[in-house]
Parts: sequence; C-alpha cells; structure tokens
Amino acid sequence: MSFLRLALAQIDTCVGNIDSNVEKVVKYATCAANNGANMVVFPEMTLTGYPIEDLALRRTFRASAQKAADSLAKKLAEEGLGELYVVVGTVGFDESAGKPRNRLLVLHEGESVLKYDKHFLPNYGVFDEFRIFSSGNKCEILQINNMRLGFAICEDIWQDGGPVARLAELGIDALVTLNGSPYEEGKTHVRLNLAKKRAAEVHAPVVYVNQVGGQDDLVFDGGSFVVDADGTLLERSPMFAEDLSFIDFDTSLSSQKSSSIAPKLDSDEEVYSACVLGLRDYMRKNGFKGVCLGLSGGIDSALVATMAADACGGENVHGISMPSMYSSDGSKDDACDLANRIGACYDVQPIEPLFKAFQSQLSLQGVAAENLQARVRGVIVMAYSNSLGVLALATGNKSELACGYSTIYGDAVGGYAPIKDLLKTRVWALSRWRNRAAKAGVGVGMLKIVGFEDAKKKDTPKDGILIPVNSIVKPPSAELRPGQKDSDSLPEYELLDRVLQAHIEHAHGRADLLADGFDSHTVDTVMRLVDRAEWKRRQYPLGPKVSAIAFGRDRRMPVTTAFRE
Amino acid sequence: MSFLRLALAQIDTCVGNIDSNVEKVVKYATCAANNGANMVVFPEMTLTGYPIEDLALRRTFRASAQKAADSLAKKLAEEGLGELYVVVGTVGFDESAGKPRNRLLVLHEGESVLKYDKHFLPNYGVFDEFRIFSSGNKCEILQINNMRLGFAICEDIWQDGGPVARLAELGIDALVTLNGSPYEEGKTHVRLNLAKKRAAEVHAPVVYVNQVGGQDDLVFDGGSFVVDADGTLLERSPMFAEDLSFIDFDTSLSSQKSSSIAPKLDSDEEVYSACVLGLRDYMRKNGFKGVCLGLSGGIDSALVATMAADACGGENVHGISMPSMYSSDGSKDDACDLANRIGACYDVQPIEPLFKAFQSQLSLQGVAAENLQARVRGVIVMAYSNSLGVLALATGNKSELACGYSTIYGDAVGGYAPIKDLLKTRVWALSRWRNRAAKAGVGVGMLKIVGFEDAKKKDTPKDGILIPVNSIVKPPSAELRPGQKDSDSLPEYELLDRVLQAHIEHAHGRADLLADGFDSHTVDTVMRLVDRAEWKRRQYPLGPKVSAIAFGRDRRMPVTTAFRE
Repeated sequence: MSFLRLALAQIDTCVGNIDSNVEKVVKYATCAANNGANMVVFPEMTLTGYPIEDLALRRTFRASAQKAADSLAKKLAEEGLGELYVVVGTVGFDESAGKPRNRLLVLHEGESVLKYDKHFLPNYGVFDEFRIFSSGNKCEILQINNMRLGFAICEDIWQDGGPVARLAELGIDALVTLNGSPYEEGKTHVRLNLAKKRAAEVHAPVVYVNQVGGQDDLVFDGGSFVVDADGTLLERSPMFAEDLSFIDFDTSLSSQKSSSIAPKLDSDEEVYSACVLGLRDYMRKNGFKGVCLGLSGGIDSALVATMAADACGGENVHGISMPSMYSSDGSKDDACDLANRIGACYDVQPIEPLFKAFQSQLSLQGVAAENLQARVRGVIVMAYSNSLGVLALATGNKSELACGYSTIYGDAVGGYAPIKDLLKTRVWALSRWRNRAAKAGVGVGMLKIVGFEDAKKKDTPKDGILIPVNSIVKPPSAELRPGQKDSDSLPEYELLDRVLQAHIEHAHGRADLLADGFDSHTVDTVMRLVDRAEWKRRQYPLGPKVSAIAFGRDRRMPVTTAFRE
Repeated sequence: MSFLRLALAQIDTCVGNIDSNVEKVVKYATCAANNGANMVVFPEMTLTGYPIEDLALRRTFRASAQKAADSLAKKLAEEGLGELYVVVGTVGFDESAGKPRNRLLVLHEGESVLKYDKHFLPNYGVFDEFRIFSSGNKCEILQINNMRLGFAICEDIWQDGGPVARLAELGIDALVTLNGSPYEEGKTHVRLNLAKKRAAEVHAPVVYVNQVGGQDDLVFDGGSFVVDADGTLLERSPMFAEDLSFIDFDTSLSSQKSSSIAPKLDSDEEVYSACVLGLRDYMRKNGFKGVCLGLSGGIDSALVATMAADACGGENVHGISMPSMYSSDGSKDDACDLANRIGACYDVQPIEPLFKAFQSQLSLQGVAAENLQARVRGVIVMAYSNSLGVLALATGNKSELACGYSTIYGDAVGGYAPIKDLLKTRVWALSRWRNRAAKAGVGVGMLKIVGFEDAKKKDTPKDGILIPVNSIVKPPSAELRPGQKDSDSLPEYELLDRVLQAHIEHAHGRADLLADGFDSHTVDTVMRLVDRAEWKRRQYPLGPKVSAIAFGRDRRMPVTTAFRE
C-alpha cells in the first residue's frame, strides 16, 4: 500500500524578486505541511520568477538564485518542514556548455535530493528559452512512500518523445509537472487534453501546477489540475488567483481520491479577469499605487477605467476629461458619470486654449491638426503621471490599433495598455458583462480576482449600472473634427473585427479572406489599413509595448521591410 | 592547371524587397561576367534581405522567395550569363521539421546546381535564428575548372566543428562564405583572425563576402575580403559601400594573385560612417526623403543634423530652434549658425507661450515642469514630421539615455535615434573629426560613404568649420531651468563615460568597478542613475527603439523585475 498527499501551490512570483518568492514558498510549504501533505509542488522557475529572459545570463543573478535555493532548503528543515518534499523551479548552470539551465529541484531534509533540467526549450511565439538555456538530458525518479514519481517542466509535455517517453519506459506512479503557461483564450481545454494524452502515455496521473499572475505583457492564469491515468479530472484550482489545493494518491483504492474542482468561468469573465490581473500585477510589481488616463466618454476609456478601479480601487484612478471644441456635451456627461459610478477622481482640462496656442504658431491642417489635439491630451496625461507618480494608461483597443486609428505620442501615450489585445466588439461585450455582474451585486473591487489589498470596495449605484449605457450604445467617434464617426474611416466594427480576427489571428491572406466569404471591397479596405498601420508603427515603433495579454501569436518582425502579403 | 576568377559582390539588400534584390543580383552578375569572372558571390540571404526575423514564418513570403530564385536562374541564362556560377542566399524550407532554412544556392545554366543550408543558427545578442530556422546537416563540394569549392554561411565559421571540419576532411581548394555580420567597433580584426584560422584548418583560401547597409537597428559594414591558406590578406573591399571586387585563383602560380586591398579607416571616421549609413538606409528603405529635429545649439543635435545632411542633403534637413525662457542667446545663435553651415532649413518656434498656456491650467512644479518643456517641443517636432512627411530624429546620446537624462515623449520623440549608441565623449570626438574632414575639403554629402543620390553637395564654409566650435566646447546644459548644467546631475562626462563603458559594455558590477579604480562615490552615483533609468524605461518602454548601431550586447530583459545588481 502506498499513500501520498500532494499539495499544488499555484503562486504568483515576481521576476527577480528572489527574496519575496522564497518567502512565499516557505509560507505555502508551511500551510501544506500543516494540512498533512508529503509533497508540495510550485510552478516553473519559482525562485527566480518566469520568464527571466536575459537575466539568466547575469552571473550575479544566478549566484543569488543558487544561494537562495541552498538557504531555502536549510530554512525549511530548521522550521521543522524537513520531511516535506518541496518541488521548486530555479535557474541552474551547465558548466560544459557555459549556459544556464531551466531547473527543477526537490528539497528534502535540508538539501536538494533531485535535480531535473528542462529538455525541450521553446523558442517560438512569446518564448525565447533556447536563447538563454541549454537542454537537460537526464530523467530521475524519486521514490516516496512506495510511489515512483517522475518530473517534467512545461514544454517537456508539449513535445512528443523526450522525458515523458523515457519516464513511460521506466514506469512511474505519477508525473509531476511545473509550468509557466501563459493565458490564451481556450487554452484550458488544450492543456487538459494534453495532460490526458501524457497520463495515458505514462499510465499514471499527471499533476499540472501552473503559475498565476501578470508579468509584463503576459498573464499566467493558474488553473492547475490533476488528471488520472484514465483521463478523469481529479482536481482543478481556480483561475487568476493564488491557491493551495491537495490531491491524495492512495494505491489501496481503485481510483484516486477526488479533490475540489473549481467551476469554469464564463468566457467574458475569464478575459475581463485576465485583463485586471495583468494590470494589477504590472502596477504592484513595479510599485505603482494608482493610474491616470483620459476619459473621453467613449467605451474604451470607460472600460479601462473600470478595470483599473477593480485592480487598485476607484480612489486610485485619476480620470481626466479633456474636451475639445469638437466634443459633444454627451461625451463630457458620460465621462463624469462613469467617474462617479466607479468612484474615480475626476478632473476637467479643456484642450481648446492649448490647441489654439499651438495653432497660432503652427497653423496645421488635416491629420496633423487632428494629431495635435491627441498630443496635447498626451502631454496633459503625462503631466498628471509625473505630478502624482501614477501609471499612465493607454486606452486603445486592438481594432483601432490594427487599423492605425490612433496617434503616436497622443492617445497612445501610456506605460500599459490594458485592452490593446481586445477587438472593439469584445470591448462592448466585456462592458456589458461587467454591468451584468454589477447588477448581480459585484461592485467595484468585488470580483473573484482580488485587487489591491488596501483598495476600497464600492457598491454598484442603485440603478445597478457601473458603465454608462450611453458609452456602450452610442456610435464610436474620435471627436477630432465636427461630426466625425469611426465608421467614416473604418468598416462597421462587427464586420471589421471578423476580418481582423481572420487576417491577424489566423494569418488569412487576401485569397483566404475572399474564401471566408468577405466581399472584396471590405477585404481590400482592411488589408490596406492594416498594412499602412504596420508601416507607420514600424517607423515610429513607440506605441505602448506592454499590454495585458498576448492573445494569439507574438511576431518579431523587421522594422524595415518592403514585403507585402 | 586550374584557374578561377571569383567576384565578391558586396551589396546592400532590403529585407522583403525581393524584386529589387533580384534586380541588383542581375546587375552585379552582369558586371562580374563582363569582367571575366567564373563565379560571383553575394551576401547571406541575398534575395530576401537579412535578418528577416518572423517574416521567415510566412508561407507567402517563402513562396515569393522560391519563385524569385527559380526565375532568377532562368533570367541569368536568358541574358547569356548561364555559364557564370552565381552564389546567392535565400530562405528555404525543411519539410520534415516544418521550419524554414537559411539557404545558399549556386545558380548555373538556368538552374540551381548546389544547395547548402546553414548548420549553426546563432541565437544570442541580436541574433534569433534558432527561433525561425532549422539546421542544415549536409556539405557538398562544387568542382569548377578543376577546383574543389566548399561553402559555408556566416555563423558556420564562428563555431568549431560542423561544416568547416567536414570540408577540411573532404579536402577543398577554397572555402566560400556568405555573411550578414553586423558592424561593431573592432570587428574587422576579429573577422580577419577568424578567417585565418579557418583557412589554416581547410588548407585553402577563405572568401568572406559580407552584406553592407543599414537594416533597422543594425549596420552591416561590408569589408569583404579573401585570406590565403597561409593567412595572407589577398583582397579587402571598402567598408560602408557597395562594391564588386575580384580574386584570381590560379594553381599554376605559387601564390594567389593579389587584388586590391582597401585602406583601413580612422576609427572616428569608421563610426561616423556607420551612423550615416544606418540613417541613410533607414530613410531610403522606408521611403523618407527628409528629416526634422530640434536644434538646441548643443552638440548632440548639431552632430545629428550634420549626419543627416551627409545622408540626405542639407536641404532635406528641417532644423527647429525651440527656445524657452531659459535658453541662452548663445544657444539660439549656435543653432542658427549650424543650420547655415550645413545648409539646413531652419525655423524658430519659441515654446514660452505654449508652456505658459499649459501652466495656466496645470501649475506644474519641479521635474514635471521641466518635462513639460521637453514635451511641448516633442509636439512641435511631430507637427513638422506630420506636415512635411519627414522622419523625426531623436538626438539623445548613450550617456544621457543610460542615466535617464531624457524626457519620454519629449526629447526622446522620434522614429530613429542616430547617436543613441554613442557616449557623450564620442559625440565630441566625432564632431571634431567631422570638422577636421571639413577643413580638409570634405563638405556636406562628400564623405566616402554615399548619401542620397539626388542630394545636393555643399562646400564647407570659408572658415573651414562645419559644426560650430562653441557647440563643441561649451559646458552641456539641458536649459530646462535657469543656469542648469548637466554636471549638476551627472558626473563629468570624461569620468561618467569610462564608468558607463565598464558597467554597460563589460557588465562590471560594483566590486569590479571599484577594482577598476573608480571611487565609490562615483560608482554608487552612476549605478543608481543607471538603475533608476532602467526602471523608468521599463515602465514607459517607449523611447526610440531604433538606433544606428547595436554596439555591444543586445539584452532582452524583463520589464517587471525586482532584481538589482
């Protein structure tokens, strides 16, 4: 008979903050031991944070991580946790290749009793691991309480062959995996199917512990789980929150004991939560306590402000209304209404006198004059950012950024762009979802995903509306000239977004798009806009580089290229 | 007896502009054939340009390149060049791995007679090849006129073992290499020594053909050469210019026939030329005919304006003097003087009324007020860029950018930053060198490196001075408050630059810097400045991403990290 209680420690690490990561490991290990666990498993590169990029190449950084691992093992033993097997990730070093390694350590009784280095180093999309690591080539098995445990790190289970195939030959009773798998919509399902395949391959349960939290332009969604050899889901941790769950492996029972299974999220709730988590962690890990942004009365800035209020509390959101001579009264009212509903600080800074001062010297025409309005607003937003020490947020959505409907150094000003990966139709959908949640009693800061600890919570106004309905339903306008509407320059968003989805996410070229059923006029319009926007972005590659979520593929494209699809 | 005349075609390709690259190949091949060459060798990835980054992953792009290679072979034959062996680089595809390949083709009599795929795929510093390519694993030998020729691509000769070792075993009479090796100061020497080592290894001459031209933030310096088996330099092409040189291999003679050997450049001329080439090609390949920039009267903007005048002609340089209430008369005079000397367009746009308009609404203090001045200037520069359709240049140097002595969306505005990789002391040195050259008769646009073809040349003024001496010798000041000097905030540049060189280029940490002999006060000041600047840059990662030259290492660092050296 063999019995093993294993704890899944789904934690939010910070890249480079080794001390704080170690402290969190001790805290979760203590809690795991107090709940009778024999082993606690943390995410990939626990001690260093993930992804560490070229920090791995710094000798001083690797030395700090090495020292931290050694002292962590000793500290755990000193605190009476020596019996517990603690599985952490860190950075190692391969002397023969002179390169770092992506390493897993099992700490036990004050020392490291097993070392495993990641075999498969992903180097596509957002991943750059082959650049910085060398590959491991060994598999070891750890025997605890008569159970044979095998280990793997993230990409190792995404590739056929390699360590999983080797462990299947050796024979194991469970496969323990440490992961740093970034959020993409629909990925929960893909991960589960993958784990089922590997579980069948090794004839044993697979334990999948994933990191949670925002790191630069990635969001890690957690959602750790355990799947049995026959594909049964035994455990699932919540998404977008730190968690400690347990699974009991008991070979005297015909099947493993089921633990808790977190319910799935509604898809709009999932994406909204990912955006809030990304923003919250970007602020927290970089020491920002508040944000500032322009409030136009439109839906983009309204949604960003609401996300920010959910992340850091309405009182730490500084909304600035910057009306021009072309702004409608409705827009100013909607901006003020939104600020009141989410409890944000609110200022009005008319740009007309500033615009006129520039024009008396420059006499700009056409697009240059439109850009000037946006840039005067950018200067004001940055003035608030500098004076208050808060993070400026850019409010652009993916549809307008893809089509170049944005001004560099103007509305694109900001250190973080929470909805840069949301198409306009998704912006509307998330706004409606947030209002439905508000109506159901989820006020500002009351989401399942936790905002700043000291942020005030705020009930939804009595009419049950958080985001003004008018901002959601009115026709979008940049209001940079009289009577301007987005639809003057762009196809209607319902159509535009479907074309963008096919063209950008699925890389459909002209022929593919026509085969998809889009008419040639629309296809040519959208391709021309996207092409021109890419060309302009290449020349001034200065838009907000950091966004909430790397939906879809990350491309590393040349700036200067004459290539056109 | 065997004889082979080989032509080294050192050309400037453009990424993605396959048609234009092919046209250039035909032109140089024709000229080579007319001069009796049996073989003409082009740089790495000739047809596609280099580096192509994730363009390699686009099926449509690869299909275009494939089609271009096939029709190029046919076209050469049709034009009577079928006998000539034409060695070009392009992108291939590895069906089994489903990945692109970095490929060399030898075209002859209308078809491809040899295919070689790069073995070693660099994935460090500025290189990302493992991300996009799979490795070749074959070596073939081409026999022409009784000579056995082996082939390799760039990184293949930088690594021990692999194709060079294999070719040494097989026995060859010459090793032909295609390269895309970016410029770094001192690299000419490194490349030559490397080639000597490989020549000794294969007991045969090494032909090294390098690309020339700017591509985004890289500059390729050309400087192609041939080295004999015994290490003798047989040929060297000029740096920073397209070139067609010849080498005769004649085994009936005891040694190879020496061709022309281009003289080495003075090190300041070399760096100045690299900056001008980078800017010229960024403009030309992106369709810009002119530039605009703020002219402060300081040395940074003076040098950038002069480089721009050398690249595209003074008449296409739009200098804008933007004096504030803190600008000295001397500064305004120096700006105007510089514009006259280089023949630039010159406008004065005082910022005081604009600054006051903002301040009447915002009442900013301290650094926020200083930033406001810089940002008002940024808006004006971009207004010129938009109105005239010219490229805005950022004028920041490496010393001030490293120390954060710069305003995001202010003086950092611009699509290209020509001197971002030059320390301040180097800025002075290059300015003095340019004046020496002017005194010796090298007026604007008369450098060895060629500017825009239709740009006007302009003689140096009669006093022999191009860059006002006052701009070079006066103490640097940002002039954002009364009496401000750079030395109020920064160590003297002579000292600062030596510390930055050690800290940034050689990654010397605190202990190393003290061992270097720097005093602890200076070391702590500089490390604090650099650290704070990096932290700020991470939060607003929007500075000019494109610079002339990737001097030193390119780091890919996490935005969010608590790690400090």
